[in-house]
Amino acid sequence: MASPPKYITGDKAAINDFIDKFDTFLFDCDGVLWSGDHVFEGVPETIRMLKARGSFHYRNPRYIPLPPRIMSQSLTALHPLSQQFFTGKRTVFVTNNSTKSREDYLKKLSGLHIPCEKEDVFGSSYSAAVYISRILKLPAGKNKVFAIGEAGVEAELAAEGIPCVGGTDENFRRDITPEDFQGLADGSLLDPEVGAVLCGLDFHINYLKLSTALHYLKRGAVFLATNTDSTLPMHHSFFMGAGSCMIPLEYASGQKPLELGKPSQAMMDAVEGKFQLDRSKTCMIGDRLNTDIKFGVEGKLGGTLHVLTGVHKKEDWDREDAVAVPAYYADKLSDLGQAA
Amino acid sequence: MASPPKYITGDKAAINDFIDKFDTFLFDCDGVLWSGDHVFEGVPETIRMLKARGSFHYRNPRYIPLPPRIMSQSLTALHPLSQQFFTGKRTVFVTNNSTKSREDYLKKLSGLHIPCEKEDVFGSSYSAAVYISRILKLPAGKNKVFAIGEAGVEAELAAEGIPCVGGTDENFRRDITPEDFQGLADGSLLDPEVGAVLCGLDFHINYLKLSTALHYLKRGAVFLATNTDSTLPMHHSFFMGAGSCMIPLEYASGQKPLELGKPSQAMMDAVEGKFQLDRSKTCMIGDRLNTDIKFGVEGKLGGTLHVLTGVHKKEDWDREDAVAVPAYYADKLSDLGQAA
Repeated sequence: MASPPKYITGDKAAINDFIDKFDTFLFDCDGVLWSGDHVFEGVPETIRMLKARGSFHYRNPRYIPLPPRIMSQSLTALHPLSQQFFTGKRTVFVTNNSTKSREDYLKKLSGLHIPCEKEDVFGSSYSAAVYISRILKLPAGKNKVFAIGEAGVEAELAAEGIPCVGGTDENFRRDITPEDFQGLADGSLLDPEVGAVLCGLDFHINYLKLSTALHYLKRGAVFLATNTDSTLPMHHSFFMGAGSCMIPLEYASGQKPLELGKPSQAMMDAVEGKFQLDRSKTCMIGDRLNTDIKFGVEGKLGGTLHVLTGVHKKEDWDREDAVAVPAYYADKLSDLGQAA
Repeated sequence: MASPPKYITGDKAAINDFIDKFDTFLFDCDGVLWSGDHVFEGVPETIRMLKARGSFHYRNPRYIPLPPRIMSQSLTALHPLSQQFFTGKRTVFVTNNSTKSREDYLKKLSGLHIPCEKEDVFGSSYSAAVYISRILKLPAGKNKVFAIGEAGVEAELAAEGIPCVGGTDENFRRDITPEDFQGLADGSLLDPEVGAVLCGLDFHINYLKLSTALHYLKRGAVFLATNTDSTLPMHHSFFMGAGSCMIPLEYASGQKPLELGKPSQAMMDAVEGKFQLDRSKTCMIGDRLNTDIKFGVEGKLGGTLHVLTGVHKKEDWDREDAVAVPAYYADKLSDLGQAA
């Protein structure tokens, strides 16, 4: 049994210790930064504070490589050629929401005045597309993906050069017909080049899409899921998550998908590889034990912080059979602003 | 471990023994009588043969109650007041398909030339409606049912006088909107009189219906399922079953529904009560181990017959962890026609 999590809300010294311990923070988004389109109070200021917090380094740029992230823009007082550098905290947004591409996320974060660059976003659709193109490597003639999901999945597949059918295609956004039943059963409506089914969050999920995916699975397509979150937090309530769009396929086919979002360590490996991070100095911040906190614990990160603004509450880890126990917890992300 | 099932196909003596052992046969439909709209060869003749097979009884109708089912119409040679009666086999169609009402089933069976009366049909929608009206007895002001399903569910609920929302209502057959997210989250779109969610097979399943049902469940509605079959056999293939329409709600809510179709013994009790059958002389015939055969075994019927024209095959019960093992098996229902 892990030691009980440290509660840091209202404890200025504990918050400062917490922040100083890490140089990289991985943030879940839904339930941490916002709920649906409602950004939680104080979140943009908190991210800005973290990015501005760090330490000065005195180095000779001619001989020593620069630290990966130089916050020189916030140091107008320094001459550009000064050998004094400031390294702020790195903030990375690691989201299981597959409906948005990195570009979409950048827009959303910027619109909410949360400082961010496209490279700071790591989504489950991106993770899935990278897995398919670089690890799965579907053979020629069998390299198409049948997608259940929104535009985010399509955009990331396209960015990796992966042909995709299904997705937002209007031809699948309709009732199933007797001809569909016949054509799916005899295979005439199936694309013989489909080698994988990728299932993400789909607000247009229907019987036709699920039946089509089921028939591809029965013909041997690889079964992938961007993530398996059961719910989606919106408007202080919960709606159907990507896992709830995928679960009919698991139930009907008897197969389990390979998950590519949190808590899959395939995603952690990809995040580490991309950002060259030191796991011992990295902290995962999230609202879900079974995705975020498990992701951080199994990834052997230096720490995990559970915020209580989303799906899981204190009583979810304060029990014998908790799926994962965080190292720290706080009422909300902006409590970190109680630091100096 | 039960003794291995007896294979009766091609064995005339075994078939005769089998038929003689029972006076009532409960038939599953999909996968036994037909697949989708394709009726299996020889099925109508087999049902007719069973109904015509039986024994003559010499009784005094003035002193001894008549057997429950008198096949006098097939005995034109007998005078109506004769004390000789013929009791044929009773044939009951016990189906988990919730999309059709008993009336619909009667039409389908008659259209396929399978002899049947409305009273011979026992569907999972009917079973669910009877359970809600006679056992659950929702209190006034909380007595509406939010239904996920087709017209069959609505028809059976209406026949029991249960008010129903959702179902085939066109207002739920559309994409979810931002106003829906808001109105479901704040409850303004929810009917305060809904006290139960009933989930059956729905060819128009979508994100809006599932999200609406999820919100009713979170407000304490009783969670019911007509049945939990994962797949639906059609055109010699498998599509999404009622269980695959329900499973997103189980996954997202963390609640399990009360099942009212096979193999639930609530259904067996209802069938027994309605038909006054002698379980020891009743045989369940089906293609699925986890619904039909389990239903018969757990119901302590005199026998179970597994036919290989549907979902499960010989290898499914011929293993250590088989969910249920039939007493008999045959390649197909019409093999019973190999009797005298």
